[in-house]
Amino acid sequence: MTYAPIPGYRYDDPEQAPSPVTAGDLDGLAAATLFTEADVAALKLAGEVLADQTEQILDVWYGFVGSHPHLLAYFSTPEGAPIGDYLAAVRRRFGQWITDTCTRPYDARWLAQQEEIALRHTVAKKNVTDGAPSVPSVPLRYLIAFVVPITATMRPFLAAKGHAQEQVEAMHQAWFKVVTLQVSLWARPYAGAAW
Amino acid sequence: MTYAPIPGYRYDDPEQAPSPVTAGDLDGLAAATLFTEADVAALKLAGEVLADQTEQILDVWYGFVGSHPHLLAYFSTPEGAPIGDYLAAVRRRFGQWITDTCTRPYDARWLAQQEEIALRHTVAKKNVTDGAPSVPSVPLRYLIAFVVPITATMRPFLAAKGHAQEQVEAMHQAWFKVVTLQVSLWARPYAGAAW
Repeated sequence: MTYAPIPGYRYDDPEQAPSPVTAGDLDGLAAATLFTEADVAALKLAGEVLADQTEQILDVWYGFVGSHPHLLAYFSTPEGAPIGDYLAAVRRRFGQWITDTCTRPYDARWLAQQEEIALRHTVAKKNVTDGAPSVPSVPLRYLIAFVVPITATMRPFLAAKGHAQEQVEAMHQAWFKVVTLQVSLWARPYAGAAW
Repeated sequence: MTYAPIPGYRYDDPEQAPSPVTAGDLDGLAAATLFTEADVAALKLAGEVLADQTEQILDVWYGFVGSHPHLLAYFSTPEGAPIGDYLAAVRRRFGQWITDTCTRPYDARWLAQQEEIALRHTVAKKNVTDGAPSVPSVPLRYLIAFVVPITATMRPFLAAKGHAQEQVEAMHQAWFKVVTLQVSLWARPYAGAAW
């Protein structure tokens, strides 16, 4: 585990542009995803449970993407050659995203970070952070579809520290909710006024 | 249970417009949502388990929407008055959607029906089927967010017929996958070329 700065990770940069999404919008999404204070507590515990498992989780996720050419394509050149530096740079931020998802408060900075993540999947900002010679965007349909693998693969990691079945279930449900909520936020630049 | 035709339900209408989504696109989404033949089998069983519970499921879902004014708004007039006829008309098709989700083959007609459902959430077609004087569209963010309640609330109904824990889990995971896959399809008209 390293504490060196992560290139392209700007969560704590006060210059990061604010999100157009309001606190009221977020409240509406939290209600729609059944997300409550109990989930915040369960995610805090999940953050402790997952802290030393980040690399193994990323191995699973990268293994999944790497085994499907139509998904690996978004980390590849337009000609289809995977870009190792790009995969590695995103991986470091993806690991930090797990931690942030479990531990960060749901404030304006959190919303700004979600908007930044959203834009980095679209033609507006994909590839820019890493100077990657990759395809111009990730289709929205795969952001949504990934709710499944990002949720389903998490359970054994949440269960790995010997917590009671009900605690594991609570952590897993909280994870499912907050991932779905974030994907809802990441869909914003794709849908414009219809978001 | 009634077998009278459901107003506005056109699944079996050969005149229904084909979807712009291809079988290849669907295969890509199935892979991204971990959806396999085992899930098809689990959904078939789920269809049997849920067949006589549709009204109770809809009671839960309608109770959830009805208890949140910011969600009930999409079944209401622009001034905020819930439209009883519209709620009732959609409810009949929503019940049929549960059955269709568990039992229909994943063919061109299935894709056409997904596209029709998608459009009926957007400015292109919302309200038209029922002549409802409601707001013009459902924001994409709530379609995505609803993956959580539509998934989480289903488990007790899947468990209600005494199946083994592993069978209930398999049915629930299959339901989660196919709902997420369908929401991915329903996002298409919102995102255009970025879908």
